[in-house]
Amino acid sequence: MSQEQGITPRAQDFSAWYNDAVMRAELADYSVVRGCMVIRPNGYAIWELMQGALDRMFKDTGHRNAYFPLFIPQSFLAKEAEHVEGFAPEVAVVTHAGGKELEEPLVVRPTSETIIYASFAKWIQSYRDLPLLINQWANIVRWELRTRLFLRTTEFLWQEGHTAHADEADAEREARLMLGVYRRFAEEWMAMPVITGAKTDSEKFAGALRTYAIEALMQDNRALQAGTTHNLGQNFARAFGVQYQTAAGGLEYVWNTSWGVSTRLIGGLVMTHGDDVGIVCPPRLAPTQVVVVPIWKSDTERAAVLPAAEGAARDLKAAGLRVELDAREGMKPGAKYYEWEGRGVPLRLEIGPRDVARAQVFAARRTGGKAPIPLAGLVAGVQAALDELQRSLLEAARQRREANSRRGVTRAELVELMSGEGGGGFAYGGFCGSAACEAAIKEATRATVRVLPDEEFRSSPAPATCVWCGAPAAGEAVWAKAY
Amino acid sequence: MSQEQGITPRAQDFSAWYNDAVMRAELADYSVVRGCMVIRPNGYAIWELMQGALDRMFKDTGHRNAYFPLFIPQSFLAKEAEHVEGFAPEVAVVTHAGGKELEEPLVVRPTSETIIYASFAKWIQSYRDLPLLINQWANIVRWELRTRLFLRTTEFLWQEGHTAHADEADAEREARLMLGVYRRFAEEWMAMPVITGAKTDSEKFAGALRTYAIEALMQDNRALQAGTTHNLGQNFARAFGVQYQTAAGGLEYVWNTSWGVSTRLIGGLVMTHGDDVGIVCPPRLAPTQVVVVPIWKSDTERAAVLPAAEGAARDLKAAGLRVELDAREGMKPGAKYYEWEGRGVPLRLEIGPRDVARAQVFAARRTGGKAPIPLAGLVAGVQAALDELQRSLLEAARQRREANSRRGVTRAELVELMSGEGGGGFAYGGFCGSAACEAAIKEATRATVRVLPDEEFRSSPAPATCVWCGAPAAGEAVWAKAY
Repeated sequence: MSQEQGITPRAQDFSAWYNDAVMRAELADYSVVRGCMVIRPNGYAIWELMQGALDRMFKDTGHRNAYFPLFIPQSFLAKEAEHVEGFAPEVAVVTHAGGKELEEPLVVRPTSETIIYASFAKWIQSYRDLPLLINQWANIVRWELRTRLFLRTTEFLWQEGHTAHADEADAEREARLMLGVYRRFAEEWMAMPVITGAKTDSEKFAGALRTYAIEALMQDNRALQAGTTHNLGQNFARAFGVQYQTAAGGLEYVWNTSWGVSTRLIGGLVMTHGDDVGIVCPPRLAPTQVVVVPIWKSDTERAAVLPAAEGAARDLKAAGLRVELDAREGMKPGAKYYEWEGRGVPLRLEIGPRDVARAQVFAARRTGGKAPIPLAGLVAGVQAALDELQRSLLEAARQRREANSRRGVTRAELVELMSGEGGGGFAYGGFCGSAACEAAIKEATRATVRVLPDEEFRSSPAPATCVWCGAPAAGEAVWAKAY
Repeated sequence: MSQEQGITPRAQDFSAWYNDAVMRAELADYSVVRGCMVIRPNGYAIWELMQGALDRMFKDTGHRNAYFPLFIPQSFLAKEAEHVEGFAPEVAVVTHAGGKELEEPLVVRPTSETIIYASFAKWIQSYRDLPLLINQWANIVRWELRTRLFLRTTEFLWQEGHTAHADEADAEREARLMLGVYRRFAEEWMAMPVITGAKTDSEKFAGALRTYAIEALMQDNRALQAGTTHNLGQNFARAFGVQYQTAAGGLEYVWNTSWGVSTRLIGGLVMTHGDDVGIVCPPRLAPTQVVVVPIWKSDTERAAVLPAAEGAARDLKAAGLRVELDAREGMKPGAKYYEWEGRGVPLRLEIGPRDVARAQVFAARRTGGKAPIPLAGLVAGVQAALDELQRSLLEAARQRREANSRRGVTRAELVELMSGEGGGGFAYGGFCGSAACEAAIKEATRATVRVLPDEEFRSSPAPATCVWCGAPAAGEAVWAKAY
């Protein structure tokens, strides 16, 4: 793909479109190390905005950041049986360091439960130390065979929350609370609607009691697991001896939770809002929210237009907006538009001689539509346009998801729905809860249970029988083909 | 060390004091992985404030953040001859991943010049792409034999700036600019005065043309290299083929710089300002700037005092200050004071019944001195006290450094100055510039050339002869025993 060629249309090859869109926006690049990506400044700037918003939400809910070692002794990973089974096949292992072979190999963290709970065991003495609410921003390594920029890479950036609680109810409350935080972030910041619910045993985190997830539907009708929270029960506390003295003087194991989102979210943002021109950034996460492009053909026009454009950019910046002024010489406006559109900038303000004369700017939305904004009310007008864009992106994504969600599916409908390259969407149906049906459905349709949906998302009336075996349903499930 | 025992006095054993102070403030903890530390929430909060301030300074000087892979192919490190010689002995090596032995081992980054300049080679085409100004916040691994919390650990957190320029002058300007940024950060934020200058060949970065450093003097009279910037010349550009087309149409290699500071700065903060009670945080980097402690003996007093304390804390928070209200029940004020002092909180506000009656709070500075502040002018009074504290910490550190700097030292004085455990300080003297004298001085005194000082720090008149060999001096050097 080059600028001249444009990018692959989504309808032609969604996967190629995704790569083209990411490349065109200069969000990331492949590196010489297999499966590892370079996050370029345009992509990292989105991540910084995501981090800022999430970090404030974590702190507002009482969490504090800390940092734990990158390396985990191999024996630590093995202390929790399910955990090692889940992660051992995909770890990178340091066997030599400082010119010598290590006595015990070190695993590069694929997640940090084991190394963090070893510290918790030292820090927690009594019920007064609980709850302990910690978050870590870190890099993670999982050796993946098939990688895609942001969506699945050998190394990625994430945050992992790790908490310890006195009892099951408090751990459960925390796991649900952070699921709500993730949902709020996805919807209010990313304009990416999600459904929430619990994972089945086969899809839960290795070592967890229960896993909850937010799941979004991408434009190719495949689901993206965008964040998970885990009630880890007392599994890790037992493995690492994390005990506390109760108020009554007894000794109990703590209850842990962990929860994480990663740079994968950037892939979700691209696949939720992008179009055949490239990515579209929701205003709240756009590194550049507004680009101001002055338009002139003569020096006289330039003398009138440029100061007006500079003034507009200055006023918007002063109001706290993220603004670029593109006054490059020797480049046609159309070429500039093309470049900023590819970067997903939500709002472009064009200022030509006629606009100056009318004391206005012409505002072009990245998602289509042009309208003048009077210079007298510039800041308020731009802010209103951005707010409206943020709202309409969420609304459009929600409508697309609903249009591609089917409730009360039968076995035949489920198979039909998931067949073919374009097939997919969210299929709601009754589920007996058996691992056998779950496996059979996956085998037949490549769809997996994304969640056992939370009440808000459940169908009414509830499905009575299992989509697959026809036995009485234990509840409802949402199936989709997933990233 | 436990809370009851207090901490080792500095005069008795500075090294033990340092560990005690770090532990008492709960800044960091040893981990189960040899040489790796856990940065606890109190320590990480200081790092976040440091990051915030530095990141703004980097962005204000035109740099953008990005992220490059943790792993570097072993062959990459070898592409620049001096670089591999310097770093190969201390790298950690991943030999196995995903259950298989790798075809080529991967080094865990000890610094990222090689992997970053491989990307620069793809991104840079023409002079229009220059300068390219990138920064990365990342974790780094160097296999160290003797480690100390923050000061020297196998894994540490840092930022590394990497830039590419069209010519030597622009690269040199950048290396000097960022040295100035580091100096400003050290002095204005950390209240840690530094001297600046160039490193000798034996102390420069492996692969650099020239290395500059900021050097601070700790309370035990040993120097701390607190930040370095490097003009890398065209060494890496040649090794990685980073070329650009000039305006005239020719093809040239770029000039690179790199520069970094790390979590080591937290160690510098502790050793610059700490006292026998524990650490002292300069207000601008204090996670908690003000703690409000209400004091009551009866319920009646409590009813008067607590709302006043809450109101004071609320007003200060509303003004943007970082404030904690310590209204814990069943804990004596003295015990609270002791806890917050150990955490280095610069200002404590005590509010008892008498203070409420007089519409004032009693402000106790962490560095000594108590004075009332009227509630009517609380925010301004507290802000003034914090500003004064910030200034006085810098001034006290500067006076201590000057009192422990000796200019125009003779050979005998240099030896005498550096002898014994308490010996040290900054020794300024003439230097012939020969590697032989440099090595002989190190052998005899354990002192190394910290910098060839920049003009502002040089002695007048300039020393005429080399401290060691008596030959004509090529310039002035500053010696010290260093961390």
